[in-house]
Amino acid sequence: MSEIIGIGLLGLGNVGSGLVELISTNREHIQDRADVNFKILHAVVKDLNKVRQSNGIELSTTPDKLLAEDDVKIVVELLGGVDPAFEWVSKSLKSGKHVVTANKSLIAEYGDELLKIAADNNVRLLYEASVGGGIPLIRTIQDGLIANEIESVTGIVNGTTNYILTKMEEENLGYAEALKLAQAAGFAEPDPTLDVNGADVAQKLSILCRLAFSTHYDSTKIPCQGVDILTQDDISVAEEFGYRIKMIAHAEILNGGHDLWVEPALIPSDHPLANVRNENNALLVYGNAVGELMFYGKGAGRLPTASAVLSDVIEIAIASPLHTDMVERKRIGISELRSSNFYVRLPILDKPGVIGKITTVLGEHQISISHASAAIRKNGDSGFGQVRIITHAVDPAKLNLALKEIKGFPEMSGEPVALRILEVNGDRRN
Amino acid sequence: MSEIIGIGLLGLGNVGSGLVELISTNREHIQDRADVNFKILHAVVKDLNKVRQSNGIELSTTPDKLLAEDDVKIVVELLGGVDPAFEWVSKSLKSGKHVVTANKSLIAEYGDELLKIAADNNVRLLYEASVGGGIPLIRTIQDGLIANEIESVTGIVNGTTNYILTKMEEENLGYAEALKLAQAAGFAEPDPTLDVNGADVAQKLSILCRLAFSTHYDSTKIPCQGVDILTQDDISVAEEFGYRIKMIAHAEILNGGHDLWVEPALIPSDHPLANVRNENNALLVYGNAVGELMFYGKGAGRLPTASAVLSDVIEIAIASPLHTDMVERKRIGISELRSSNFYVRLPILDKPGVIGKITTVLGEHQISISHASAAIRKNGDSGFGQVRIITHAVDPAKLNLALKEIKGFPEMSGEPVALRILEVNGDRRN
Repeated sequence: MSEIIGIGLLGLGNVGSGLVELISTNREHIQDRADVNFKILHAVVKDLNKVRQSNGIELSTTPDKLLAEDDVKIVVELLGGVDPAFEWVSKSLKSGKHVVTANKSLIAEYGDELLKIAADNNVRLLYEASVGGGIPLIRTIQDGLIANEIESVTGIVNGTTNYILTKMEEENLGYAEALKLAQAAGFAEPDPTLDVNGADVAQKLSILCRLAFSTHYDSTKIPCQGVDILTQDDISVAEEFGYRIKMIAHAEILNGGHDLWVEPALIPSDHPLANVRNENNALLVYGNAVGELMFYGKGAGRLPTASAVLSDVIEIAIASPLHTDMVERKRIGISELRSSNFYVRLPILDKPGVIGKITTVLGEHQISISHASAAIRKNGDSGFGQVRIITHAVDPAKLNLALKEIKGFPEMSGEPVALRILEVNGDRRN
Repeated sequence: MSEIIGIGLLGLGNVGSGLVELISTNREHIQDRADVNFKILHAVVKDLNKVRQSNGIELSTTPDKLLAEDDVKIVVELLGGVDPAFEWVSKSLKSGKHVVTANKSLIAEYGDELLKIAADNNVRLLYEASVGGGIPLIRTIQDGLIANEIESVTGIVNGTTNYILTKMEEENLGYAEALKLAQAAGFAEPDPTLDVNGADVAQKLSILCRLAFSTHYDSTKIPCQGVDILTQDDISVAEEFGYRIKMIAHAEILNGGHDLWVEPALIPSDHPLANVRNENNALLVYGNAVGELMFYGKGAGRLPTASAVLSDVIEIAIASPLHTDMVERKRIGISELRSSNFYVRLPILDKPGVIGKITTVLGEHQISISHASAAIRKNGDSGFGQVRIITHAVDPAKLNLALKEIKGFPEMSGEPVALRILEVNGDRRN
């Protein structure tokens, strides 16, 4: 039985309730992997009377009681904005509590100061969720790429504007209509200013610069242009020339300084960033040893953000780095293979009736065909060729039985080949 | 001045010499970021007489002296294969030395056993470079996604076969010709069997299963089909139907077991894996909180692999996790902006000569035009419209000056908009 570590929450909104849910859903998994267990003891909220599932969490409207509680070892700050987050986080660190935050404004503006307070008090301050939502960008740049001098970071780090631009492009909407859609879908705030004018992106770029270049830039000094200048025409003219328009954050070592900007830019349609759709984020990182890497995933949302927050909480909780590898292996076993569409190639001799025989056998095995074609090359009296078939979803075991039978035909000139057809992302889920 | 940590190398081939180079090139950067410094003291090689830059490294043909040397704290194993790697790595761990390895065969087959030996001797065994080359996949799954139950991993983890398939597709080559090209480019061994028959991919999938599912599968038991069954026709028929063929490793929790296979599969051409070209690798990971993430980058090569190896070496070397954040910030400053192609939109009134005036001003500022178009809508006697221009590369400061001048024209009906055009990946790099 692993020790239970107490957590205090500053804020219990969307991401906070996601964290409560995630700790509960994945409790067993996290105990298996990291040998730690968490209990959320206390949460500071705005309104005590709001109806919510309490889950045994003590609620208050000021942080005093949470800060006084010795059992709260890790404080998770999910307030957003600088005030009162800066004060409450400082106090938490000074009370000897580790802090995990998802607050990009706080880290962009006061990161250095808060990290110093954390070090002075021998506690940690982690902020994986502040950039790129669920994508573990921060620890990747900090740890995974530590052997590299990072030369540039370029990417899409604001889900709201990427959602708006995707809708303008795919549904031929004007900027104002696309913004309304984003608000209706919950991807844009009622007041979307900080997202659409680039201020949010500049804060994230400031954090990335600290990690990549060990340099702090005031986010309000970064050259910045919003998406609110764009028209539907800009999108469609760009498309004519083979480009898509994306809101880009860019920082690069150049001529002894940093080339630094936040702007909607035209991206060639075969560029990896061009296909990042809706609320997704993606970051290209260029390291002097590793070359170009890309990280892609959900840049926002309740559970993706909670996933990043909880990874920081776990990192703080596990003292020993040997932990994760030493868990006893669960043996599960290989399952029955999933049904799938298949591409099948059958090498045949040119004999009458061969195609009929093949399709009959497939039919007998309940394998239904989506496309079929045959090509035969004559060679004097004889001939040979290929039958190609794309199936609808079929159990691979059934297909193998059918192909085994077909393989025995005297009309076959070689081994049948069957290749699985991968489904489009996410089609399988739910 | 940071302490100097001694390293011993088992193998000094391609990746080994890359590691020597990387430690030297990025020494200052690594000291800044992690406050550690390394010296390669000893290397075990096959042939003492081979001409190589010694860099003051003591060479021998057996590991005895290296193992006896107290100053060698970390052993880096770059031999490949199981014999003698297993014996030498075991001995290193038992001598109280940490080990970093890039050896997928060793970890796939003996990972559990070696990790146990490491734990028993209170040292660490890390293997980031064993899967995905320079992409930090292993620590991402282990640490970054630790709050998630991983539901599936799907990806391209063999650079050789991906290079072959890319060449078959893009240059209409047969399998044998494409293989020859891969060998000439150094991406395939003279004996390519383990790459093309899927054995290498199965070993990597076995390692991923251990990380994602805490389950060990014998890589030789994973259902596996090689790329050597493919013909040019398969590639082009797949293309006709909107698919590309890629060598895929797949593992997924399904019906209480794992759906597990290594096969060339058809991928819809708008799937993120479809655009992974040449020797690149990419892995899609689906976590129950974070949803789908993708990691993309160079899956092989001297410096990318050395980058992953060195990140493990640094992780072992830095005792305190507070290190990286506490380095003093270097202040560099924002540089002059880089020249770029731009898309410019100019809202105009329908007056005679306006287009000529605009293009004349651009010419006076040495801004050359790649495309220009104008569209005017008549509205009774008056009319208004847009001039759209795509420029060749231009200094943004120059462009701003020109646009400022144009903005003053009485023929303008609104603010000019200028958007940067991002270049295709890597075009900027040498």
